[in-house]
Amino acid sequence: MFGVTILGNNSALPAFDRHPTAQVVTLNEQIILIDCGEGTQMQIARYKIRRSRINHIFISHLHGDHYFGLIGLLTSMGLLGREQDLHLFGPKGLDEIIALQLKVANTVLPFKLYFTTLEKEGILVDNSKFSVECFSTQHRVECYGFIIREKKVPRKIDRDKAVQFEIPTAYYENLKLGKDYQTKDGRIINNELVTTANSPAKSYAYCADTIYDETLADKAKEVDVMYHETTYLKDLHERAALRFHSTTVQAATIASKANAKRLLIGHFSSKYEQLNEFLAEAKEVFPNTDLAIEGVSFRI
Amino acid sequence: MFGVTILGNNSALPAFDRHPTAQVVTLNEQIILIDCGEGTQMQIARYKIRRSRINHIFISHLHGDHYFGLIGLLTSMGLLGREQDLHLFGPKGLDEIIALQLKVANTVLPFKLYFTTLEKEGILVDNSKFSVECFSTQHRVECYGFIIREKKVPRKIDRDKAVQFEIPTAYYENLKLGKDYQTKDGRIINNELVTTANSPAKSYAYCADTIYDETLADKAKEVDVMYHETTYLKDLHERAALRFHSTTVQAATIASKANAKRLLIGHFSSKYEQLNEFLAEAKEVFPNTDLAIEGVSFRI
Repeated sequence: MFGVTILGNNSALPAFDRHPTAQVVTLNEQIILIDCGEGTQMQIARYKIRRSRINHIFISHLHGDHYFGLIGLLTSMGLLGREQDLHLFGPKGLDEIIALQLKVANTVLPFKLYFTTLEKEGILVDNSKFSVECFSTQHRVECYGFIIREKKVPRKIDRDKAVQFEIPTAYYENLKLGKDYQTKDGRIINNELVTTANSPAKSYAYCADTIYDETLADKAKEVDVMYHETTYLKDLHERAALRFHSTTVQAATIASKANAKRLLIGHFSSKYEQLNEFLAEAKEVFPNTDLAIEGVSFRI
Repeated sequence: MFGVTILGNNSALPAFDRHPTAQVVTLNEQIILIDCGEGTQMQIARYKIRRSRINHIFISHLHGDHYFGLIGLLTSMGLLGREQDLHLFGPKGLDEIIALQLKVANTVLPFKLYFTTLEKEGILVDNSKFSVECFSTQHRVECYGFIIREKKVPRKIDRDKAVQFEIPTAYYENLKLGKDYQTKDGRIINNELVTTANSPAKSYAYCADTIYDETLADKAKEVDVMYHETTYLKDLHERAALRFHSTTVQAATIASKANAKRLLIGHFSSKYEQLNEFLAEAKEVFPNTDLAIEGVSFRI
């Protein structure tokens, strides 16, 4: 299971019961939090996200609607007795803000918080299950998007078959890599008899806050799902550019140029109560678009 | 109209849809915000509090459940174009946290934020409508409670009568002070013919977070409404003392010793889903007790 659940989809101000930006990406047993606007810990509770499974948090930039909920989430994790390590990635300054807020409260977190400063594009996490890389976006302050890629396990073992052919479990890792098995009496068990092809590894790109920027299409090339902000409808493209934000048509154009399979749009301005037009405008350019509605999970 | 509206009544962690501490005191056209836990700006919107009328904010101490929502509220006020001055009072360090968070976002608030560091007990605000004083409480970090007192306007003018007796409006301020009026032809219009007695000035004490401390009964002597925390039910008095918090019986005892007219209890621990027992236990000691329920306004 690889999916993303939207916890907040509004820009700047909370409005119409929409919350500032936060999303969780679920990848098998891991939950990755991307951005953490005010109230994220309440949204996590509301949508029954298991916070003990959050081991990685990525903050795109230091505008409040993307991180004001972080200190509350961290201290709550501490109050709940979390002990396992937590890995936090964010722009320069975030660690200082957290340290200061912990200091004035005489709080020492009961878990290790590893902070990595985002400074340049590149791989941030690379383990056996997934990788996360960051890329720069053009916004009013230093800002990063993230691509999460699951790791492709080459072959899936058919355990019944493997047992039937008496292949020792110690050899299973080789089976996954596509190797055949040779029995003690010299017979060759063809790999395809005991394994099946896995579905291709999927990827998710979170494009953070950004002005219209065609380089993002290259940076997030061929992703399965792309999240791109649409602070404004298309008629406000001038205001969008002034504020280093994007419109519906611009987001859909980037998704199209990137050849993404699916587009999620969010970060709606508080000036809009209804969101229908966002969907209609984006779909004109990129039909496979969905609104990033809070509480909704999308399979990647 | 002098009243208090509860925006958050939970301690430490948000739970059971209860929010961390925040209250607004309404005094004629003024709204005073006391404490500002995460999500306060959403609660302000939810309960239709007019944020443009908030000109004074008091933060009791720097535990996150009392101030993590402040930076979000301030920046939202800025985004909404607030221009009028705002007066903020809080312990040492709060200004530094705010300054740092504004700096990393390249944000300059479009209004003047006057910060006063709480350092000792005394009067913080004293204008024609109300006064606010702070007093120390005993908690794990430096912590202050607040007493808000309305100013007594000595007499209320009966405008119909005043017009009938042809008293010039320029003299109305004298009427309020209880003076008689002498007409041009020498007649004395007795003050009581054109004014009525005002109700006595009321007062509200917010006792913040505190261990059981009998000096609070003196500090908040004879207030009309006292808010006192009740993090725990009475059986957990040892845990309360360890954490510098109070129980139901302790809060009610302070209200009783202070000879307060009414007690509001809140700051409930997240371990309690039901609150009935809080009310029952407190009422045994101080019958005129109410639960500080979110969204409910209490007349002072």
